[in-house]
Amino acid sequence: MIATKAFAAQSATTPLAPFNFERRDPGAHDVQIEILYCGVCHSDIHQVRNEWGNSVFPMVPGHEIVGRVTNVGTHVTKFKVGDLAGVGCFVDSCRVCDNCKEGIEQYCEEGMSGTYNGYERDGKTPTYGGYSTQIVVDEQYTLRISDKLSLAGVAPLLCAGITTYSPLRYVGVTKGHKVGVLGLGGLGHMAVKFAASFGAEVTMLSGSKSKEADAKKLGAHHFALTSDEATMKGLQNHFDFILNTVSAPHDYNTYLNLLKTNGTMIVVGVPPAPAQVPAFNLIMKRRSIIGSLIGGIRETQEMLDYCAEHGITSDVEVINIQNINESYERMLKGDVRYRFVIDTASLK
Amino acid sequence: MIATKAFAAQSATTPLAPFNFERRDPGAHDVQIEILYCGVCHSDIHQVRNEWGNSVFPMVPGHEIVGRVTNVGTHVTKFKVGDLAGVGCFVDSCRVCDNCKEGIEQYCEEGMSGTYNGYERDGKTPTYGGYSTQIVVDEQYTLRISDKLSLAGVAPLLCAGITTYSPLRYVGVTKGHKVGVLGLGGLGHMAVKFAASFGAEVTMLSGSKSKEADAKKLGAHHFALTSDEATMKGLQNHFDFILNTVSAPHDYNTYLNLLKTNGTMIVVGVPPAPAQVPAFNLIMKRRSIIGSLIGGIRETQEMLDYCAEHGITSDVEVINIQNINESYERMLKGDVRYRFVIDTASLK
Repeated sequence: MIATKAFAAQSATTPLAPFNFERRDPGAHDVQIEILYCGVCHSDIHQVRNEWGNSVFPMVPGHEIVGRVTNVGTHVTKFKVGDLAGVGCFVDSCRVCDNCKEGIEQYCEEGMSGTYNGYERDGKTPTYGGYSTQIVVDEQYTLRISDKLSLAGVAPLLCAGITTYSPLRYVGVTKGHKVGVLGLGGLGHMAVKFAASFGAEVTMLSGSKSKEADAKKLGAHHFALTSDEATMKGLQNHFDFILNTVSAPHDYNTYLNLLKTNGTMIVVGVPPAPAQVPAFNLIMKRRSIIGSLIGGIRETQEMLDYCAEHGITSDVEVINIQNINESYERMLKGDVRYRFVIDTASLK
Repeated sequence: MIATKAFAAQSATTPLAPFNFERRDPGAHDVQIEILYCGVCHSDIHQVRNEWGNSVFPMVPGHEIVGRVTNVGTHVTKFKVGDLAGVGCFVDSCRVCDNCKEGIEQYCEEGMSGTYNGYERDGKTPTYGGYSTQIVVDEQYTLRISDKLSLAGVAPLLCAGITTYSPLRYVGVTKGHKVGVLGLGGLGHMAVKFAASFGAEVTMLSGSKSKEADAKKLGAHHFALTSDEATMKGLQNHFDFILNTVSAPHDYNTYLNLLKTNGTMIVVGVPPAPAQVPAFNLIMKRRSIIGSLIGGIRETQEMLDYCAEHGITSDVEVINIQNINESYERMLKGDVRYRFVIDTASLK
């Protein structure tokens, strides 16, 4: 067993604090990774505080992991010691259902094994995430990472990146499309980069005028202040797609109205209460709403390769693990541009 | 001007009664049609009773019209006197917006001219529908009707038919798909026929056990009683598509749960209040909801030709116009299998 240092939550009401545990020795198909950086996702806070009601403690959060391979099992072919490697939101799945066979393991019919706050396939061994010095993962669920990009900026691609890349690809965003990105946070800033990179004309839809300069810097061609009635009126029937990243309560209808005929709103944020959707608004313009969850292993690799080729990374603020609780508070105030990433050297 | 006999509502609270008015003489591009049959759509009741708040009186309802051409304008090329012809839910549109140019005039950016309870393009001449002896319509908005099928059974294709055909085609329903049809009424019975004809495995989802035999006769392979918990549980993650025809209040979520990964619920009914849609349910299976409104002229013609080729008509009960008020009451009780059609000879 491999002694591992981490930060963990012991309950929904206690701050994250140092925690030691053991990882399994690598099996024949496993890769052992020394974690170098781990992104801090908003869902880490939800789960640490048991806001989704399914938390298992102690919990070591973190599912935006990049590091270096330090050991490989006897049957591993994709990685060798010294390679860079990444781990995203899940570390296993049933491998036999239609979705797993199609490579969309995030929709595994038996449920994927979350990288943390989940269980291995035995249904009882808890998984611990990336706020730790190392991790052991089956090579099939491990991603290859290019050495061309800043590793800290790559880490958030494993969740924020694929969560926005996958639906933009699924609906076929390309040159000639008008895309609105609703909400400029960890997800929204990646959505702007990808949509612009795919050739779309991108508008940042935000309630904060202060984000206009940043939006443009990220690649948005236009900025629309959602509280400005005239602006919103001018954008009626305007977009082919809106990528809605907002998890706070908001009126879907306001943004559905901005879609042209055949337009689609992609939903990746989960507001606390169900949205109100009038059928009429969908029917009169053949509009649609689609949800999307991260991405499968194959597509995550495709996204990482695309980012390496096009020089795309997340805009990050690197922190030491000792600042994690304070960073959570800043995230809750929207005070991060646009992702905290833990330098796990600070764990040693 | 052409003297025309009709039945009209004089207000939202009076029954339909005889009404005489004049149609315009056919212009260069117009077709004059002696109406033979007109289907009775549920939206006729909504509008006669001003339930959508936009009614203009006197109102001659009816937008499922078939008849015979009795006169043509000097520039008409598509029709000659004696041809069968049909008119659906609209008689004109702006003709210049992107949607009109694409042939999806139902989504005309300036608004289509409804066949009744609407206005001609001048914005002031009211349109009167098919509960009348004749109609004059631009040939571009007039459909060719085959003489192979029962004319009474063809009339409802102009609304109920195209409303279900169009979205099933748009989402690409074909062999190998599992399709659920929610609600067995005027729309639902056509949806079953089309989905089965396209090669899909069709399940009728209905709250009335009494409709099982009919559903099978219409072509459904399976029947599922929506009030039966075990049945509904067994259908979780089952369908590629659900065509939701229900206008009564109902929980979208119940039926979203029946969609497999990447499944789509098509909405063509408008419940009185907005539906509650939890983002989570869409996200966890990449499910989507799409609305759809009737169909354009080109696709309506395609549908009529398809029906002629495949022997598809609506199941109808032919009535005399004098029974229209009583028929409305029966429709409100769901007592029609599955469309009333007026024999307009009864107007003479």
